[in-house]
Amino acid sequence: MSSIGISRTFVPGLRSSRFAVPIIIRNGQIRPYSAHHSKDESSTQANQTISQKQLLYTTDPLTPGSIFFLPHGTRIFNKLVQFMKNQQTKYGFQEVITPLIYKTKLWEKSGHWQNYKDDMFKVVGNDASKEEVEHDHEYDHSHDEGLHDYGLKPMNCPGHCLIFSKFDRSYNELPIRYSDFSSLHRNEASGALSGLTRVRRFHQDDGHIFCELGQINQEIENTINLIKDTYKVFGIGEEDIEYYLSTRPEDKYMGDIETWDNAENQLKSVLDSTAGSGNWKIREGDGAFYGPKIDVLLTDAFKKKHQVGTIQLDFQLPQRFELKYVAEDGTRDNQPILVHRAVFGSLERFFAILLDHYQGKWPFWINPRQAVIVPVNESHIEVAESLQKQLSGDILNSESNISPITGYNFYVDVDKRAETVGSRIKDALSKGYSYIIMIGDKDIQNGTVAIRTRDDRKIQNLKTEEIYKKFIELERSYQ
Amino acid sequence: MSSIGISRTFVPGLRSSRFAVPIIIRNGQIRPYSAHHSKDESSTQANQTISQKQLLYTTDPLTPGSIFFLPHGTRIFNKLVQFMKNQQTKYGFQEVITPLIYKTKLWEKSGHWQNYKDDMFKVVGNDASKEEVEHDHEYDHSHDEGLHDYGLKPMNCPGHCLIFSKFDRSYNELPIRYSDFSSLHRNEASGALSGLTRVRRFHQDDGHIFCELGQINQEIENTINLIKDTYKVFGIGEEDIEYYLSTRPEDKYMGDIETWDNAENQLKSVLDSTAGSGNWKIREGDGAFYGPKIDVLLTDAFKKKHQVGTIQLDFQLPQRFELKYVAEDGTRDNQPILVHRAVFGSLERFFAILLDHYQGKWPFWINPRQAVIVPVNESHIEVAESLQKQLSGDILNSESNISPITGYNFYVDVDKRAETVGSRIKDALSKGYSYIIMIGDKDIQNGTVAIRTRDDRKIQNLKTEEIYKKFIELERSYQ
Repeated sequence: MSSIGISRTFVPGLRSSRFAVPIIIRNGQIRPYSAHHSKDESSTQANQTISQKQLLYTTDPLTPGSIFFLPHGTRIFNKLVQFMKNQQTKYGFQEVITPLIYKTKLWEKSGHWQNYKDDMFKVVGNDASKEEVEHDHEYDHSHDEGLHDYGLKPMNCPGHCLIFSKFDRSYNELPIRYSDFSSLHRNEASGALSGLTRVRRFHQDDGHIFCELGQINQEIENTINLIKDTYKVFGIGEEDIEYYLSTRPEDKYMGDIETWDNAENQLKSVLDSTAGSGNWKIREGDGAFYGPKIDVLLTDAFKKKHQVGTIQLDFQLPQRFELKYVAEDGTRDNQPILVHRAVFGSLERFFAILLDHYQGKWPFWINPRQAVIVPVNESHIEVAESLQKQLSGDILNSESNISPITGYNFYVDVDKRAETVGSRIKDALSKGYSYIIMIGDKDIQNGTVAIRTRDDRKIQNLKTEEIYKKFIELERSYQ
Repeated sequence: MSSIGISRTFVPGLRSSRFAVPIIIRNGQIRPYSAHHSKDESSTQANQTISQKQLLYTTDPLTPGSIFFLPHGTRIFNKLVQFMKNQQTKYGFQEVITPLIYKTKLWEKSGHWQNYKDDMFKVVGNDASKEEVEHDHEYDHSHDEGLHDYGLKPMNCPGHCLIFSKFDRSYNELPIRYSDFSSLHRNEASGALSGLTRVRRFHQDDGHIFCELGQINQEIENTINLIKDTYKVFGIGEEDIEYYLSTRPEDKYMGDIETWDNAENQLKSVLDSTAGSGNWKIREGDGAFYGPKIDVLLTDAFKKKHQVGTIQLDFQLPQRFELKYVAEDGTRDNQPILVHRAVFGSLERFFAILLDHYQGKWPFWINPRQAVIVPVNESHIEVAESLQKQLSGDILNSESNISPITGYNFYVDVDKRAETVGSRIKDALSKGYSYIIMIGDKDIQNGTVAIRTRDDRKIQNLKTEEIYKKFIELERSYQ
């Protein structure tokens, strides 16, 4: 491997934000741009202001680059994860949960230790006597620095290759698609850390597909369709998405030219049919030595480009991990192709993009504050709390002691502070509630409540069931 | 702190399995016990056999004590997590996502570094230049060993205390209840590692409650009720649960006797009203120096006792982290009490207990293989796959390109291998499917399918909607 002189950029998986290269303005939501800040700073500062107001996340010098998601930020984070889990289920992914620390020899096998070590954290037990020396003939220990050292994983692929390698595999199982939402750690320089966009600990909507060469086409098509459909849910149109295909480097590459050409032709034809002919760009010779890739960039409200989705073909890791399957013709020792892919990319960075994009005005379905009930005075609190339970949905409103596994769970609060209705509404607006519901004597008499949106002072008088039905419709249509 | 000479057992949170002390036989499901194995081994071996057959989890010497949950094991794991998240929502917990690595000075502040260091993993960046030295006057650096060293968290409490400390807190916010499902790492000796029960990496259904002294009663009552209700879902009756109250140690304790007495009296009265008078035992003087605790043990099918739930009062960490809130009377600097609590305890260990308990015959709601469809021959595959989609529920069966966030997701497979119906049924039984559904010409004509359970050869002919309705009922009633 060292003979082909891999550059540091070889590592599959997304970088935290290094590829964020501002180029063109495309986003519909153009906002004044302050020349006093670098683009990174203005965006980060805006994010932090919203986060402070909405109590979404925080950080601490005791763990630079690791985010503390506060309760309301966790709601958004979890909604993104659940969203993607459901889409992945539809596309045939199987979620796995894999370890965070692996002995150095795994990272030697994968090539990370030789090429990516400086960006990794090392893990060592404080009490060395707890680690037994293993006599393992599979590996050459002659150059082991520390037999007891672990690397904290910067990406999931080696763990997924290990799982693949543990069973006899047949062509009729392929494609095998593993997804994983593990914590990943990459040791960015502490001075360079910034908000949610340049972090040390992050999560990906990570997926690895093990497939045959002839299956690449379909898998890439699925991924690009999922990318487009997903971004659309967040109001990011095709005009804000760019696709870049990076092809075989001239000198250093692994595998034969035929495999490369075949793979690249499949990628090109998929890009033509999904992104549309002429709607993607080529970066000739810019692929990694281990395979061609497609980078998906989107332009945010601050006109900054972010790499989000990625699709990377990998001819190398399957070889390093000696992955094999039995083909339809009965031949053994066939090597699958590995596809690394992510749609959101880093969940933390996607969160940051959404903060910019929505400016704290979260659509109902992902809003951590979906509705607040304002009882006019103390005598209406009881009715308000009963209404809260009804509107919260199946999890809170279950008759049994035990809530069901599946059901709606809306975030509805009651603001029962002894403040004026006006000041509580003002506060609710500042916190970004999608709906504000007021309850007074007249409402109780009429059997309805007064409801208004965040953006419109107009009040509607609706029945509880009507509101609940509306909530369900909004969630189901991702509004 | 060193003046009160803390023993190594002071650390709050659950241990991996050290408290598993076999005492009495109570469990209904008594099975032959092999004298050739230690209890731990027989249980672990049984688990591993089921896991191998059902492909639930695996391990690797490259990361001793860390579990790889395979797709079907991940389904069970995620179901346990989702179950508990929904119950915690009901009990007013707010989930947070907190970092995994913290600088040594956090662990010094919490006391872990002085008392628990040997059981922790140290984390260091491979490239030291990436860490800046901070000039932080809040801490005394005179005895810092390595300013750049981190500890990989063995428990969540310090992270939750940090969050509490970041905001001004008022009595009317209390109790604040944080829940967290983070990965935790504890450096057990590698020779002692065993299956799912003695691991290095695990997850807890961890919760920390910050409250006033007068609120303990209600919080403990809620926790014990949740424990009882939860175990009942898994068919673990009250006769298999034991409660132990550990009270103030004679010599070494912190806080004043009045606070201890008040807290202990609340715990006793709650145990009387929830577990029932006479149904709990006291361990006089066996509490930690930082507060009294309740341990919940259950007896598994191998007659082995496991500590699962725990409720620990803590007067110490709030002091170490200088946690404060403004009381109703306006006084500042009031120190909240911290309650550490878990219901499942270690999710990995609870998984192991369930493996023993069900012997692979998972109830429908948590079964990673809920139904398999066996088309009689190739001509029935298309109908089988359409049926699969309908029975899988909202996530797979959505008309839109994008699946909804909330909806049913049943695990339904089609076994379209060219094997005889009999051999495919045999295989389905061995894998533990709850339901086997057969489709042939007659079924298609009649508009029904032939369905049988895992345990009964009797075949029923049902319509698709009837089966789907049954699936929903089974999930909602936790059967």
